Amino acid sequence: MGLFSKDIKTMDDLFLHALQDVYYAENQIVKSLPTMIKKATNRDLTAGFKKHLEETESHVSRLEQVFKMYGSEPKGHDCPAIDGIIEEANDIAGEIADKDVLDAALIAAAQAVEHYEITRYGTLVAWAQQLGRDDCAAVLQRTLDEEKATDKKLTGLAERKINRKAAS
Amino acid sequence: MGLFSKDIKTMDDLFLHALQDVYYAENQIVKSLPTMIKKATNRDLTAGFKKHLEETESHVSRLEQVFKMYGSEPKGHDCPAIDGIIEEANDIAGEIADKDVLDAALIAAAQAVEHYEITRYGTLVAWAQQLGRDDCAAVLQRTLDEEKATDKKLTGLAERKINRKAAS
Repeated sequence: MGLFSKDIKTMDDLFLHALQDVYYAENQIVKSLPTMIKKATNRDLTAGFKKHLEETESHVSRLEQVFKMYGSEPKGHDCPAIDGIIEEANDIAGEIADKDVLDAALIAAAQAVEHYEITRYGTLVAWAQQLGRDDCAAVLQRTLDEEKATDKKLTGLAERKINRKAAS
Repeated sequence: MGLFSKDIKTMDDLFLHALQDVYYAENQIVKSLPTMIKKATNRDLTAGFKKHLEETESHVSRLEQVFKMYGSEPKGHDCPAIDGIIEEANDIAGEIADKDVLDAALIAAAQAVEHYEITRYGTLVAWAQQLGRDDCAAVLQRTLDEEKATDKKLTGLAERKINRKAAS
């Protein structure tokens, strides 16, 4: 996108811009999850992150499908939000001495990522519907549902096990 | 926090770190909302942002109250996540020519901010409870409820009015 021009003129342009934003974000998440898997100690948390990595890879494929349906090439563009969220996760992980406390921080960091995706996919679904592209909305909705389910699972795991162990 | 030391040793330290993170974030939001108010065109959206600015100021006060309850001084520390989310909002706003499309982008950006706060306050409430600090959890829960309500209102406004106008 041009720094000195206003490239977004229509809702179509805005939808495509948001799609590129999320495409970049999902790809960054694919890159950062292996580090989180390595840092996590709790077995359920490691398994959860591994499963989420597989899911995220399928979200990337789904986005490529939506780009195609929309008559556009898959392309990402810098997304300072996800970069910041991942940077914050790495920063805090580097400051924690205790492995159980680290697990609690990692799960919170993963939930911050999930919430970023939930808000972006929520917006994309609403915009696709508004643009009369229920076909794209349906594909994006599947990912949105999975992101919400992952967030819920992480909350359950945090409250049932991880936080308790970290505070003990 | 030290770059070369692992300063977070306990769940108490982690809770305090997250509190400082959100304190910085809320203060950045207070600074950025006036720009969003100026850029928004739709009257309901402007009114919504103004109300949210007032609410955010009260969230800052509530966090100061929690710091006090926790026997600590209110202090923020850099939070790359909220910086990235706000930077992304400013970037996209600078690229949009049409005022109705800009409103749609602004509301999506505001929802990204809300979701960041929802995830952080959700974590803080869970951690406070785990640490046996139901008094702190109750104060933080009030803000969490308000953030969720704001997000819901923004979704309603986007779907009822803003997106429709932007796509027409």
